[in-house]
Amino acid sequence: MRNFKLILQYEGTRYQGWQRQESTGNTIQGKLEALLVKMTGAPVQVQGAGRTDAGVHALGQTANFHARTALSCEEILCYMNRYLPEDIAVISVEEAPARFHSRLNAAGKIYRYRVMNTEIPHIFDRRYVYEFPARLDIAAMRAAAGLLTGTHDFCAFTSAKKGKKSTVRTLYEIKIERLGDEVDLTYKGDGFLYHMVRILTGTLLAVGTGEKRPEDMTDILERGAREYAGELVPAKGLTLMEVCYHSGSFYEDKGIW
Amino acid sequence: MRNFKLILQYEGTRYQGWQRQESTGNTIQGKLEALLVKMTGAPVQVQGAGRTDAGVHALGQTANFHARTALSCEEILCYMNRYLPEDIAVISVEEAPARFHSRLNAAGKIYRYRVMNTEIPHIFDRRYVYEFPARLDIAAMRAAAGLLTGTHDFCAFTSAKKGKKSTVRTLYEIKIERLGDEVDLTYKGDGFLYHMVRILTGTLLAVGTGEKRPEDMTDILERGAREYAGELVPAKGLTLMEVCYHSGSFYEDKGIW
Repeated sequence: MRNFKLILQYEGTRYQGWQRQESTGNTIQGKLEALLVKMTGAPVQVQGAGRTDAGVHALGQTANFHARTALSCEEILCYMNRYLPEDIAVISVEEAPARFHSRLNAAGKIYRYRVMNTEIPHIFDRRYVYEFPARLDIAAMRAAAGLLTGTHDFCAFTSAKKGKKSTVRTLYEIKIERLGDEVDLTYKGDGFLYHMVRILTGTLLAVGTGEKRPEDMTDILERGAREYAGELVPAKGLTLMEVCYHSGSFYEDKGIW
Repeated sequence: MRNFKLILQYEGTRYQGWQRQESTGNTIQGKLEALLVKMTGAPVQVQGAGRTDAGVHALGQTANFHARTALSCEEILCYMNRYLPEDIAVISVEEAPARFHSRLNAAGKIYRYRVMNTEIPHIFDRRYVYEFPARLDIAAMRAAAGLLTGTHDFCAFTSAKKGKKSTVRTLYEIKIERLGDEVDLTYKGDGFLYHMVRILTGTLLAVGTGEKRPEDMTDILERGAREYAGELVPAKGLTLMEVCYHSGSFYEDKGIW
C-alpha cells in the first residue's frame, strides 16, 4: 500500500462540509472517495486534516489516502482534476511515508475569515466574504486579538457540547488587516474547536463595533461559557488556508500569501 | 425628467449580455429596466456605455436613465440593490446633466482580460479567468502590444461584418502584467469594436506561445482581414473595468486598481 498526500482547494458553497455522512452524500470527502474507488478499484478512505463545516472553503486543505496503484503522483493529479467537479481541485499529490496522517501529524492550521466592511456589494467575491457594513475599530479588535492569542481553554468559543476532550488550544497569531473595503482576520493555531474561528470572529467584530471591550476577552476565556462570547458568523466568509507540518508548509514557504 | 448616472458591477456568467433582446430576456439591461419600471411606475430606458457580450463581466459599467421620481440618489441605490439579483449590483447613483449619455459621452473604456497561466486549477476565480497553461513569452507579448497601441484600423480584430461604420479606434495602452500564475491584459482605448478585446487577447497569446511574432502585428493591421488575427478567447476572462469621461473616472481616480 502506498500513502499519498493531497493538497486540495474547494469552494464549500454546494457541500455539506468535508466529512462523509451516512445518509446524505454531498460532502468533499465523499466526492474524493467515490472518485478514488473508481481510480483504484478498491475502497479508499481519505483523511482530511481539517473537518471543514458546510459552506466553508479551502485553499490548502491537506488529506491523505492509502491505496495500491501503479499510477504516478502526476497521473493521480491529472486523473482527479479531470473527474472532480469544478469547485474541487487537487493542487498537489505526493507520496508520503506510510505512517503519515494528515490530521494527526498536523502541527498547525491557518484559517482566514473575510469580512466585506461596506454597504456596497462586491459581487465577484460574494460567495467568499461576509457582508458586515458597520464601522469597525480595528485597533480595538487587534487589542482583543492580542488577549486571545496564546494557550487558553477556548471552551467559550465552541458550539461543541462539553465533553471529556480537552478544549485547550494554542493560538499563535491572529492577524487583522484592512485592505480597502475588506477586513481579513487570519488565525494561526495548533488546532481549532468546532466553530471556534467563526465564534472568535463574531466576538472580535463585536469588539470592532464597540459592543464588547477588548478587556472582556480575558473574562470570556475565564468564565468559559459560550453565551459570553460573540455570535457565530456565517460559514461562507471562512477559508482553510493551509495546514502546517513540521516538515514545512505548501503555500507559506513560497510566500504565496 | 431627471437623468441618473449609474455605476454597475455584474457577473456576466448567467446573462445573455448587456443588451435587451426582443425574444429571450435574460440580459443585464432587461433586468435593470424591469426593476426601474417597478420603481418609477413608467417605462424606463437604461443606456449602457459598453454593450458587453454574453458571459462578460463588469466592475465599472456606466449607464444612465431618465425618469420622473422624487427619490434621492441614495434611495435609488438602496432600492435597486435590494431587488437586483445577487450577481448585479449598483455601486453609485448620481444625478447627471439632462444631456449626459453614458455611451455617447464616454471618452474611453478600460477592459481587463485575465489569463490563468497554469495547469493547476484556481477554483475561486474560475468564473472570471481563462485557463491557458501554455508557457508565455511576456516580453514578446509586450512588444506586440506596443505595435497594436495607437490609432489604427482594427477591422482585422472584430467579428462584425464589414459595414459603413469606421473601424478606426485608438488604443491608448495595453498593459500586460504577470501576478503569480495569472497574466492580466489591460486595454485602455477610446472605444472597442465587437469582440475586439477578445481577438486582441487571442492574438497576443499566440505571440506569447511563439505561434505569431510581434512584428506580425503590423502586417495583420495592414491586411485588415480577420483570418490573420488570433483566436476569439472565451468571454468569461473579460471584465469591463471602467468607463472614463472627461469629467474623471470612478475607480482610477481613487487608485483602486
